[in-house]
Amino acid sequence: MDRERFIVIGGVAAGMSAASRARKLKPDMEILVFEKGGYVSYAGCGLPYLISDKVKSSDRLVVYDAKFFKEKRNIDVFLHHEVKRIFPRQKTVMIRNMATGEEKEYPYDKLLIATGARPFVPPIKGMDSAGVFTLRPLEDGIAIKEYIGRNSPKQGLLIGAGYIGMEMAESFTEAGLKVTLLEKMPSIVGTMDSEITEVIEQELSRNSVTVLKSKAVVEFASENSHLSRAILDSGESLNADIAVVGAGLRPNSEIAKDAGIELGKTGAIKVNQRMETNIPDIYAAGDCAEAYHLVLGRNVYIPLGTTANKQGRVAGENIAGGSASFPGIVGTAIFKVFDLEVGRTGITEKEARVEGIDYAANVVEHGSRAPYYPGVSKIRVKLVADRSMGRLLGAQMVGREGVSKRVDVFATAITAQMSVHEIRDLDLGYAPPFAPPYDPVLIAADELHKKLQGKG
Amino acid sequence: MDRERFIVIGGVAAGMSAASRARKLKPDMEILVFEKGGYVSYAGCGLPYLISDKVKSSDRLVVYDAKFFKEKRNIDVFLHHEVKRIFPRQKTVMIRNMATGEEKEYPYDKLLIATGARPFVPPIKGMDSAGVFTLRPLEDGIAIKEYIGRNSPKQGLLIGAGYIGMEMAESFTEAGLKVTLLEKMPSIVGTMDSEITEVIEQELSRNSVTVLKSKAVVEFASENSHLSRAILDSGESLNADIAVVGAGLRPNSEIAKDAGIELGKTGAIKVNQRMETNIPDIYAAGDCAEAYHLVLGRNVYIPLGTTANKQGRVAGENIAGGSASFPGIVGTAIFKVFDLEVGRTGITEKEARVEGIDYAANVVEHGSRAPYYPGVSKIRVKLVADRSMGRLLGAQMVGREGVSKRVDVFATAITAQMSVHEIRDLDLGYAPPFAPPYDPVLIAADELHKKLQGKG
Repeated sequence: MDRERFIVIGGVAAGMSAASRARKLKPDMEILVFEKGGYVSYAGCGLPYLISDKVKSSDRLVVYDAKFFKEKRNIDVFLHHEVKRIFPRQKTVMIRNMATGEEKEYPYDKLLIATGARPFVPPIKGMDSAGVFTLRPLEDGIAIKEYIGRNSPKQGLLIGAGYIGMEMAESFTEAGLKVTLLEKMPSIVGTMDSEITEVIEQELSRNSVTVLKSKAVVEFASENSHLSRAILDSGESLNADIAVVGAGLRPNSEIAKDAGIELGKTGAIKVNQRMETNIPDIYAAGDCAEAYHLVLGRNVYIPLGTTANKQGRVAGENIAGGSASFPGIVGTAIFKVFDLEVGRTGITEKEARVEGIDYAANVVEHGSRAPYYPGVSKIRVKLVADRSMGRLLGAQMVGREGVSKRVDVFATAITAQMSVHEIRDLDLGYAPPFAPPYDPVLIAADELHKKLQGKG
Repeated sequence: MDRERFIVIGGVAAGMSAASRARKLKPDMEILVFEKGGYVSYAGCGLPYLISDKVKSSDRLVVYDAKFFKEKRNIDVFLHHEVKRIFPRQKTVMIRNMATGEEKEYPYDKLLIATGARPFVPPIKGMDSAGVFTLRPLEDGIAIKEYIGRNSPKQGLLIGAGYIGMEMAESFTEAGLKVTLLEKMPSIVGTMDSEITEVIEQELSRNSVTVLKSKAVVEFASENSHLSRAILDSGESLNADIAVVGAGLRPNSEIAKDAGIELGKTGAIKVNQRMETNIPDIYAAGDCAEAYHLVLGRNVYIPLGTTANKQGRVAGENIAGGSASFPGIVGTAIFKVFDLEVGRTGITEKEARVEGIDYAANVVEHGSRAPYYPGVSKIRVKLVADRSMGRLLGAQMVGREGVSKRVDVFATAITAQMSVHEIRDLDLGYAPPFAPPYDPVLIAADELHKKLQGKG
């Protein structure tokens, strides 16, 4: 092999970011991408909107296709190719062509593991029934959309009330289904505190979504070989003719582990800021890898598309001889559910308690616009700060508008290690259509500051 | 006088914030507010929306009235009372009751000057014609609205293409007028760079607003004692039956100067971070005072409602014996003009050049939402950073949505002295309805970073 060869395992967000970045910096490097599925570089986060038909065609979710990467970026993409094993000593990977079954060994100089994550599937009888789905690769979204088109299901059941559950509740409702959302824990959206989730629950209820908490499905029952009912651990039975199981993600890290690559405590691949694993010339990025959490001060597993893109870019840059680093995340996540914008960054009160942090928390409500400007609505903000210095540790928000980017203001402040005292003095924009003179961000920081000072 | 007495001159944003804060901290302090106008604590920034009838009644703009302050906060508000003179040695103020003409001297222990600003009126013949207005106190907004209701003007002329000019162009258009906007400088919105103002000009044009640059009015001509035409310095003549002159603001600092209080180079009252003037027990806050600019590192005069509120709160806290400080501003301003959101923070390229800063600037365009999500539109972002360290100095943005709070992300980053390199790694929220995986904020920072690295 004459040219230096860079092999990427997995061609979605992290993998294609890395391949593109490396190509830009090293025009003469050979770059091969092996992707198990039939698509590369697609927007997985768009699947709920494909299913609701807000996005008409799955083509719209494919940012670039394999042909584009070959022709425009000189990157060889092999679809339906699975990596069976990594041999770090020999610096080779064993690849299986899933169409032909043929296996072949490819040498590499640099390797990126970007195998992503898979849905966790709880032990439910009848998981393979027609009408029961998980939602991960683009193929899943297409299959669900087709199933709805062909079978016109009336009753949709969602297992798991996390972000995907929220987005799918809206999606199914818009697709004309009556939705039941089932969560095994006592509260929905477990990554947020109750002051936020209670607002979300009201919104779900307002949109006729039935929420069942502390319940699990033990069996899917079929009629005429299609899903008809779900049987719960309580013995109850629910009518359902389509179900999506969204019970969290697990990192596809087994192939790394088998090759002697170190995993973190989270089960995802352990990486440093350069996205290097413990084995030379092997990198990992995206949903199969950990990320450093700037508030918690340790590696965590929070698989999200933005992080995957950033980690991929950093891996690609370093693989091409650069010296990039990914400083870490602060746990930012936003989503839309019906007419609500919801977001979080940093840590929640629940998390602060689990971590044993000496914290103070406070909740405020304040207008999204000037009080007299038409369309104003309330934003609820919950902040968590460390008690001794007042340093902001986390923010959660919910409202009908103006939430998502205000969360980013807090994400920036947390990254800069600002205190609530500093945040309340920030020179934020004010104009009646967009914000009140005291922005909810400032009010929230001021109130928590006063509480910390004992003047609350 | 038994109780300690705090006198406030001027009862709008800064004055009433200070009075309320002092009352909260010192329940037994005597607090007197003298206000020249007929209203206190009103939202001056809402006037364009009152005039367009988006806000139906001026009552909606009055946050709290004098009665509220007396009954709920034990603050004595004297409307239509003008302060004629401050005697710092005697610690008294001479007050004139504008209704009766009576003058009276009031002793104070603590004094806050919150006299605000007034519109700068260029030398134009016929400024006192019926139909010619400036826009500052609530009374002006009410008068313009009444004039439109009574006289149904068809042709609106706006002198000055600053923020007020932009908001009034929308307001007059919504009120059914055909609008001409006249600016004496060669570009509109002089506080922004041309890459932003060209987008605004397109939007004005799309909404049938005529923009005339590098032109000034020398005379307003009347017919039947109402404005009918404006005569320009070029000799041209424009039909106009209502005109609003918005040519900038001047601080009402004369009364301070007459009392020996130091003004800054800007002509506004010089204050420290505690909002103290150079004379003991005399404070100043709001549109009559300067503010420290965290990027420029010196006092500036940028009169804005948010700053007035914050400065007032700090003054009130210190006057009540506290120890608050106002660290300063970064020059954030946002506004709406028709379907555009526009914002800026930090300094522009123009300002960087004037300051002699070794800077780099870059402009990008990127989507407000995921590219496939309905309603996505382009946001244009211009960033300015210092060349040696890459520290962000300023950001400007324009787009149809998602601008105002993204500006706040940059405002926060500038306050935290972040570099574009740090900003591009920020963990910002991503969800298809609200942002693309790489937010415009991150793209803009990344591109400028690359330009600084010579990899652009």
